Amino acid sequence: MQGQMMNVPLTITTVMEHARLYHAKREIISAIDPQSTHKTTYGEAFERAAQLANALAALGCKPGERIATLAWNDYRHFEIYYALTCSGAILHTINPRLFEEQLVYIINHAEDQWIFLDPDFVPLLENIQDDIPNVKGFITLCDEKQTPKTSLKNIRCYETLLSEQKSDFEWPELDEYSACSLCYTSGTTGNPKGVLYSHRSIVVHALSVSMLDASGFSANDIVLSIVPMFHVHAWGLPFRAPMIGSKLVFPGRYLGNGEVLQNLITKEKVSFAVGVPTIWQLLIDYLEQSGKKIEPLRRAIVGGAACPQSLFDQFSNEYDVELIQGWGMTELGSVGTVNIPGPDFEHLNEAEKKSSVLKQGRPIFGVQVKITDDEGKELPWDGQTSGHLYVRGPNVCNSYFSQESDEFAVNGWFMTGDVANIAADGTVQITDRSKDLIKSGGEWISSIEIENCALTHPQITEAAVIGAKHEKWGERPFLIAVKRAEDSSSAEDILNWFDGKIASWWKPDNILFVEELPHTATGKVSKLSLREKYGEFFIK
Amino acid sequence: MQGQMMNVPLTITTVMEHARLYHAKREIISAIDPQSTHKTTYGEAFERAAQLANALAALGCKPGERIATLAWNDYRHFEIYYALTCSGAILHTINPRLFEEQLVYIINHAEDQWIFLDPDFVPLLENIQDDIPNVKGFITLCDEKQTPKTSLKNIRCYETLLSEQKSDFEWPELDEYSACSLCYTSGTTGNPKGVLYSHRSIVVHALSVSMLDASGFSANDIVLSIVPMFHVHAWGLPFRAPMIGSKLVFPGRYLGNGEVLQNLITKEKVSFAVGVPTIWQLLIDYLEQSGKKIEPLRRAIVGGAACPQSLFDQFSNEYDVELIQGWGMTELGSVGTVNIPGPDFEHLNEAEKKSSVLKQGRPIFGVQVKITDDEGKELPWDGQTSGHLYVRGPNVCNSYFSQESDEFAVNGWFMTGDVANIAADGTVQITDRSKDLIKSGGEWISSIEIENCALTHPQITEAAVIGAKHEKWGERPFLIAVKRAEDSSSAEDILNWFDGKIASWWKPDNILFVEELPHTATGKVSKLSLREKYGEFFIK
Repeated sequence: MQGQMMNVPLTITTVMEHARLYHAKREIISAIDPQSTHKTTYGEAFERAAQLANALAALGCKPGERIATLAWNDYRHFEIYYALTCSGAILHTINPRLFEEQLVYIINHAEDQWIFLDPDFVPLLENIQDDIPNVKGFITLCDEKQTPKTSLKNIRCYETLLSEQKSDFEWPELDEYSACSLCYTSGTTGNPKGVLYSHRSIVVHALSVSMLDASGFSANDIVLSIVPMFHVHAWGLPFRAPMIGSKLVFPGRYLGNGEVLQNLITKEKVSFAVGVPTIWQLLIDYLEQSGKKIEPLRRAIVGGAACPQSLFDQFSNEYDVELIQGWGMTELGSVGTVNIPGPDFEHLNEAEKKSSVLKQGRPIFGVQVKITDDEGKELPWDGQTSGHLYVRGPNVCNSYFSQESDEFAVNGWFMTGDVANIAADGTVQITDRSKDLIKSGGEWISSIEIENCALTHPQITEAAVIGAKHEKWGERPFLIAVKRAEDSSSAEDILNWFDGKIASWWKPDNILFVEELPHTATGKVSKLSLREKYGEFFIK
Repeated sequence: MQGQMMNVPLTITTVMEHARLYHAKREIISAIDPQSTHKTTYGEAFERAAQLANALAALGCKPGERIATLAWNDYRHFEIYYALTCSGAILHTINPRLFEEQLVYIINHAEDQWIFLDPDFVPLLENIQDDIPNVKGFITLCDEKQTPKTSLKNIRCYETLLSEQKSDFEWPELDEYSACSLCYTSGTTGNPKGVLYSHRSIVVHALSVSMLDASGFSANDIVLSIVPMFHVHAWGLPFRAPMIGSKLVFPGRYLGNGEVLQNLITKEKVSFAVGVPTIWQLLIDYLEQSGKKIEPLRRAIVGGAACPQSLFDQFSNEYDVELIQGWGMTELGSVGTVNIPGPDFEHLNEAEKKSSVLKQGRPIFGVQVKITDDEGKELPWDGQTSGHLYVRGPNVCNSYFSQESDEFAVNGWFMTGDVANIAADGTVQITDRSKDLIKSGGEWISSIEIENCALTHPQITEAAVIGAKHEKWGERPFLIAVKRAEDSSSAEDILNWFDGKIASWWKPDNILFVEELPHTATGKVSKLSLREKYGEFFIK
């Protein structure tokens, strides 16, 4: 027997309509240069989204077509988010930091019809334009006088396109299961793989993450998205903020500029922000140097990579900001777990509290988790036993776009590629990536646990551990680390740090200090290149 | 093109599984007598729900069958909520305060197969058992030794049924559109009408209402449901609290006992509670008399009827509790709008703030609203123009259970029967029920606005305004009010109160002071009986 409730679909259009009707005057602020900002409102942005939808129709774009963006975090990118998804097209956000060959691959694989681009990326696209013949043209995110001279063919100006169109559009009533956007995840091996989100998955994710303990905020918060909009929809913030009615602040191209970030937080009274550890470290470094504060900021979410203990301590002790750990993946559209302290937290002792905040947290509503051994047998939730982490839920992808893959188990669970333990209350602790595990004398060693321990050392700012080949043990942990400039610690000093903190046989056999670690296009440490360079360190 | 995300349904089972895995140890407290409470946990409650599902299967219950409850707010009722809905049966919660003829009507109309009942309701069911021949048997919510002697046929004891069963059950994977529960709304005219909820509508409602500005709370909150579980699922609390992981407190049969409520709030550290105005008034009266406090309470949601200004003032000034107005209907499953102050609130002056908190608030995510004139033409959102309020959304019913009704407009919007204005930002203010409007000299007068004004008088504790027939004007407002016992105000004193507060031609022509007002089974003032009694007051 079916319920007798209205069949109203959960689409991004309902998010837009909700914000347009109830939060029209709430502001969207975008940094346009280090000193000044652009101000608009949800009401105006959705009118411009309607103009853009009309312009796209005039250009001959059809529902289901993929249209790409190479763009920073600002109001124009926000408008494109809604114009494309709500008109039935598919928003394909591209990471401009990808290598050219990866860019060519994903633009061709997605069959992108048009590319929106910030003028910054004109040279990048000029270099590859001959290799992406399916692209019909390029739309520069600026007005006529800012449009750079370029060899790009069929180039249009965003502001001119909009100015020719009326500001209402008959948004179609879409099926909630229809595709709305596409993000490629750049594995460290093989070609990038595309995750094709549905409207339903975006809305359910936005609702789940808006719960208070899943990093929700209120209309009284002012929200800063330091996570790039090309990175899994900036963890959903461009959908969540309008749904909730919060003022939204975009740092434009200044995602990695501590001064601009500090200025935006203070001037716009930002109370809630999301970012990866390197961004937070960079902001803290700027604050330390400048002596400036970030007083309005109340809560900051960190995810995307392991986060050093020192960062939690600095945020909490020196700036009175609650730094919250989360974990997610492109394939989860984005958030899987969040570690907001619950009622049991206050009963922990100080040491337990410290180690607790480093965990990835409990699944948000709608995300199921399990861990298994190599044979697929489920492992206990004891907070100790590590296994392959699988997830399931309405926000989890079930296959990659136009691609066969063995990463999806037959029984409907997605294999994350992470290794984790799960505590009795469901708290997940990622201990490693499956492929980064170190196998020493037949036993697993978690590279991430060693890295986390290294990062608790006050002089270590970044650390990576790889399994380097070893004649006796097969592999042994090798630590590659970045120290503070003024520090004079020796390798031995740092190695002594591990004594009593991790199992003695997990202690790295050696350390190499480097100026900086290699990073992938998404900002993660590239262990692949470290393994290529140092994988035979102990047997050379 | 369809998205490539997992097709995992949004069912109540996912709420149960989420809480079972991640919030198993969180407590459920139920008052069992004025001095003592029963303690259990989500983990234990869901094990007992599994036992109950096994027991129901053993009794021959089948998916889609309606099974009724006549029960107070406690852990057993909570277990029944999940055992029925998650096994595919339909939970039919019955208001035990209905008149016997209404009880007979809805039990027969729903074709209830079994009835769960608190021992309190044995006499009620004994009286009507011959008129409800479809009911196969009765399950008393107690253990063997508490089971009363009764003439009810085929009576089973809840605790005995459970004790015979194992505590795991293979919960079926249900279609999210399938029916899960049924509530009848008792109109003031005609037979009660049933709203048949789907799993999807319950989950989407729980998610939407869990947003912070829609009356969300956190796992660190402790939540008291004073709204009866037979009243639109206690506004969703038995689904929201497990989803969020909050400790849940049930007042048992003591929904109307100020002493028990104060004791529960203090002892269990309740920080968030929901209730109707009469309950809050009763609690405040008890606090005034006893001099006791309700310190842990931080936020209280009030809905279901107009709320006097004095209650907001008392909660805020004397008890430091934020009282928040909401509006909903059985047909909306339950919440439509909530009035949590947003960022614009602080810019209002004191008078504007006072009148602002009395409004019903802005729609939660997923609820669309519009107002129309008598001809169905949409009216402007200017905060002034009143019209018939329509709603639309995934949590709104599209027809009544097994019943033809003209209350559903052809274009997919539900006509609420309320009259409201809507401000530019979507804030809804209910000005009347359509059928309670007073038509004086061809113009509408809102009975609710006059009542609200009367309730701002410090000596008036309850007020109802009806349109009484009038030779010259057709109808004129007539106020029937309850004064504080010690008050000696005359009718003229009270009438003078309205001067300058409402339009002079809205001022009631007369007042009648009564000991108490008549109420319907759901606790609302019965204007129907007032009209029957006093409708011809001016022409008699």
